[in-house]
Amino acid sequence: MSFTATVLTLYPEMFPGPLGTSLAGRALREERWSLETVQIRDFATDKHRSVDDTPAGGGAGMVMRADVLAAALDSVADDRPVIAMSPRGRPLDQQRVRELAQGPGVTVLCGRFEGYDERLFEARDIEPVSIGDYVLSGGEMGALVLLDACIRLLPGVMGAASSGDDESFETGLLEYPQYTRPVTWEGRTIPEVLRSGDHAKIAAWRKHRAEVDTRLRRPDLWERHEGARVRPPSGARRHDEED
Amino acid sequence: MSFTATVLTLYPEMFPGPLGTSLAGRALREERWSLETVQIRDFATDKHRSVDDTPAGGGAGMVMRADVLAAALDSVADDRPVIAMSPRGRPLDQQRVRELAQGPGVTVLCGRFEGYDERLFEARDIEPVSIGDYVLSGGEMGALVLLDACIRLLPGVMGAASSGDDESFETGLLEYPQYTRPVTWEGRTIPEVLRSGDHAKIAAWRKHRAEVDTRLRRPDLWERHEGARVRPPSGARRHDEED
Repeated sequence: MSFTATVLTLYPEMFPGPLGTSLAGRALREERWSLETVQIRDFATDKHRSVDDTPAGGGAGMVMRADVLAAALDSVADDRPVIAMSPRGRPLDQQRVRELAQGPGVTVLCGRFEGYDERLFEARDIEPVSIGDYVLSGGEMGALVLLDACIRLLPGVMGAASSGDDESFETGLLEYPQYTRPVTWEGRTIPEVLRSGDHAKIAAWRKHRAEVDTRLRRPDLWERHEGARVRPPSGARRHDEED
Repeated sequence: MSFTATVLTLYPEMFPGPLGTSLAGRALREERWSLETVQIRDFATDKHRSVDDTPAGGGAGMVMRADVLAAALDSVADDRPVIAMSPRGRPLDQQRVRELAQGPGVTVLCGRFEGYDERLFEARDIEPVSIGDYVLSGGEMGALVLLDACIRLLPGVMGAASSGDDESFETGLLEYPQYTRPVTWEGRTIPEVLRSGDHAKIAAWRKHRAEVDTRLRRPDLWERHEGARVRPPSGARRHDEED
């Protein structure tokens, strides 16, 4: 059975959207994954079909109702993990993406407005996930990102030529810098080692550059990678980092 | 002049995509922002219109050519910042989103395949930006996220009712949990303080919960917020965090 994505949203017309084109779109047509949307509003119980209400305690905006969301989720309950897109959630990383891509699929709940009634997370087994430290107009954009990241890892989607093993985050590091033809462009030449044909030297250079770039650009990733405290800034700029 | 987004991509059909619906879509129709796409392939110079080539030094996939990308970027050069979506970039955060939203707009370069020829970043003033620590099929999804985050902050888009000031990340903390009607749902009741009508107590509770949740869920954010070293795990679980 292929990877199945179910998206609960107030805007089903946003799907597949960009996932209907390019790599993900071709994989969708080839049935390497499938997509269904659930209109949350269909689970409203009052005559106005309301899905939200004002925040308890006051404040701007509207909060999505736990009862309506739970009814929508219960309608699709199965063995797939349920993820709610939320800026309060655990940051998405490539490891979680890979786990999800190896599973049967995912049910994704897209919030809007000021978020979800918190009781939803106490009453159901839901994993709140954030795609980054910024605020979006709704969870739909996050769901698109989450699904895109998963779909490209599904068997047959990227093809053997691009396994993804060398990519940023797969090793816990940023990817090394890349170069391609022309060899010289605007007076800048591809680093000599990459033109040497010496595979061991090339591999060593790439590993070194991945480490250097991660240390300088993403000390947080580097710290996790090293499993140690970050080095003081003075020690982080050694002379061998300028190559 | 309204916020202008120019997206350089191999897949212009992905835009506006989800940005054509809901909040961003209405704002687009109301001309609170404008969007143009540039097909990178139009700047290819060979008869095959190629935009990429094999990585120098070998390896899987294809690398986008610096000469073609620079020509595409030069065609739209103006005073707006140029952002290249890249997993090697600086992580996007709400502060950068707010800065961008206050400016004239943004030019966004969407990579594909194994990324950009690194010389592009030496030769042009380009800010590499990552939306998170995962790998996407291309920069287009990142561009959609970046633009969505900016657009909702543009004047008149969200309306006065939802200024966004209380939201996650705006204060450097996660947002406090929200609740709404029904007061009791599946035996769970909205916290009493939120039903008290005592605005000072409600504000204090929310501040406390924002701090507690940030400390427990996102020690990285908490550390930055405090401008201090993270507390040891034992100290991070005080008894008053269970309310």
